[in-house]
Amino acid sequence: MHGIFSDRITDVPRSFIREILKVTVDESIISFAGGLPNRDLFPVNEIKTATNKVLDLFGSDVLQYSSSEGFLGLREWIAKRYKTKKNIDVDPDDILITAGSQQGLDLLGKTILNDGDDVVIEEPGYLGAIQAFSLYKPTFHPIPLENDGVDIKKFEKAVRNHNIKLFYCVPNFHNPAGISYTLEKRKAIADIVRGTNTIIIEDDPYGELRFLGSEQPSFYKIIPENTVLLGSFSKIVVPSFRIGWIVARKEVMEKLIIAKQASDLHTNYFGQRIIHQLLTDYSIDDHIETIRKAYGSQRDVMVEAIEAYFPKDIQYTKPEGGMFLWVTLPEGVSAVQVFNEAIARKVAFVPGDPFYINKKGVNTLRLNFSCTNEDMTRQGIQRLGEVITSRLI
Amino acid sequence: MHGIFSDRITDVPRSFIREILKVTVDESIISFAGGLPNRDLFPVNEIKTATNKVLDLFGSDVLQYSSSEGFLGLREWIAKRYKTKKNIDVDPDDILITAGSQQGLDLLGKTILNDGDDVVIEEPGYLGAIQAFSLYKPTFHPIPLENDGVDIKKFEKAVRNHNIKLFYCVPNFHNPAGISYTLEKRKAIADIVRGTNTIIIEDDPYGELRFLGSEQPSFYKIIPENTVLLGSFSKIVVPSFRIGWIVARKEVMEKLIIAKQASDLHTNYFGQRIIHQLLTDYSIDDHIETIRKAYGSQRDVMVEAIEAYFPKDIQYTKPEGGMFLWVTLPEGVSAVQVFNEAIARKVAFVPGDPFYINKKGVNTLRLNFSCTNEDMTRQGIQRLGEVITSRLI
Repeated sequence: MHGIFSDRITDVPRSFIREILKVTVDESIISFAGGLPNRDLFPVNEIKTATNKVLDLFGSDVLQYSSSEGFLGLREWIAKRYKTKKNIDVDPDDILITAGSQQGLDLLGKTILNDGDDVVIEEPGYLGAIQAFSLYKPTFHPIPLENDGVDIKKFEKAVRNHNIKLFYCVPNFHNPAGISYTLEKRKAIADIVRGTNTIIIEDDPYGELRFLGSEQPSFYKIIPENTVLLGSFSKIVVPSFRIGWIVARKEVMEKLIIAKQASDLHTNYFGQRIIHQLLTDYSIDDHIETIRKAYGSQRDVMVEAIEAYFPKDIQYTKPEGGMFLWVTLPEGVSAVQVFNEAIARKVAFVPGDPFYINKKGVNTLRLNFSCTNEDMTRQGIQRLGEVITSRLI
Repeated sequence: MHGIFSDRITDVPRSFIREILKVTVDESIISFAGGLPNRDLFPVNEIKTATNKVLDLFGSDVLQYSSSEGFLGLREWIAKRYKTKKNIDVDPDDILITAGSQQGLDLLGKTILNDGDDVVIEEPGYLGAIQAFSLYKPTFHPIPLENDGVDIKKFEKAVRNHNIKLFYCVPNFHNPAGISYTLEKRKAIADIVRGTNTIIIEDDPYGELRFLGSEQPSFYKIIPENTVLLGSFSKIVVPSFRIGWIVARKEVMEKLIIAKQASDLHTNYFGQRIIHQLLTDYSIDDHIETIRKAYGSQRDVMVEAIEAYFPKDIQYTKPEGGMFLWVTLPEGVSAVQVFNEAIARKVAFVPGDPFYINKKGVNTLRLNFSCTNEDMTRQGIQRLGEVITSRLI
């Protein structure tokens, strides 16, 4: 049987990261390769209590089919939090509950993109977004990421010279690059897209996980008419429920709901009700504070270890939040080759290649610091430093 | 802002059924319009026990990100059940856990369909499938459904004259038509597609809910090389978890996993673990037997009421299982007009229109019998009979 598949699916490679994570299943490997929140911080007992409560109070109500938009109570909670925390006015009807942010990306691709449509993506960019959009066969315009956001001149040129439908970005604690957009760059981007048809997809799964510096306003605050905002409970509660959300203005929301309905009818309603109960009965702020402190100190340990063990001329980002740090090796050093040697030394990371649209053999790599303790981090970074040093000799 | 949306999304109308269900929120209406399993039969306590057990035994393990394929233990359980119940050999690796069968349809559309590709769909056909596939812009070839399956001559003609990529069918207790495919028709269909590239999508959410007659072999048993089989826990456990599955041979599965990963990374893992625990600790067969008995007697009540209250020349299907019964009014009587009058009499159903690709004002309608008790069913059918009778005078 030939020719049975769609063109779109034959264009998408199986995830490189997925293959890497298979290598790192070996428990003797110190892995900075994952992108997982730290399971030691999961609110297991609180979830248990909340689950029993929703079943006791609401019984079969929480087990039936539900609306495509998602549980109104949960959407109201999210709307209220945007108001309280960021002074953003969001109507609960402007929120759609999705199966994680990843589904938000798929629904946006489905709703917005025709074959060949122009999409600006950061370089390096979030792999999940590249994969999700690839299925709708856009033309990607990768714009290099600097320490304060995308290269603004190149961004402006792309928006002026093409009919850019989507600009996808992770402005807080970027995955993989660990950087955050400054206020100046956010404003400059808003000025460039204002009055155009370009939609900024502001993906913000890590925004609450700040351990340094001060918060910058959301694109959804600066330029709501051109922004779609994605959020998730994966990093502040737990990932396994697959519950995230999209904030979009009514015109876009109407189409997203049609796409949502066709994609899976609605998001796991039992999980929505449990999370809502948990948020109602417990202080999510206290919980987030615990995560922030833990990740902040894990990040500090990693930065100190890099200072101690990496060659002095290695560049790396010093994130103010989130879970990732980005390392730039000297020109010409392939991170994939370093990876192969590192695996032999029982330490893993993600080489930069999969985060680029058209580049291979890049000299960059991603380190995750949310899942390793002090000893592991030091030991792993020391070994990695030795591998890198040996490559430079 | 104009031209921001994809062509595919502007092609898909907002669900008519969705609009109808909004009308029927009024609690004084007796509704045969829904497609919901009966919530009184949900295993609330068993779910509670299973949830506590997975959290006590596995803690944060069941709250972390997981694999795109789905929980191996659950896939093994499904594979074993196919062997025990239907003598079908399925490798757990041939199973992908999805967010309900609806996501299975989306992933198949994503994986298989290019713009304009030929798809055979039953007429009337399952609305969720029409919606899911519509987003991938196929050319639909609706083939009329008879009491024993699709019109085989027209089906053969479609397969011979076009490059049919997908044939979507619900061979057991069809939604909306309530019919089941006979063995003869299954074999005839298999003979026609054998050796072609046509994939039969065998959607079987109701297969376990048989209360009359005898089971017929699955297309996946008759012609596995051309069949993709969809299953779901929505009708035999609960719908709110959104957990279903796809069975497909390796070549197709590989692509489906890529599409799954891009769509939502993986299905709600907490829910997968709870359902697996429930299936391990309780007898699902006993539970299914309870559902069968209940739906069987609800179906009998509806059939008796139709005999008593509908004009004698009204045709309707007498389902051997599932949740739906299909009524054909005399030629020229519009079910939508009957609907409007029925709503005024506080009784609701789904007029046939949304189940057809290109027809409006049809004389058919769907009745759901899984959610109404004896009194409601009799009363509702009596009122509906009066409305229909008044239209025929």
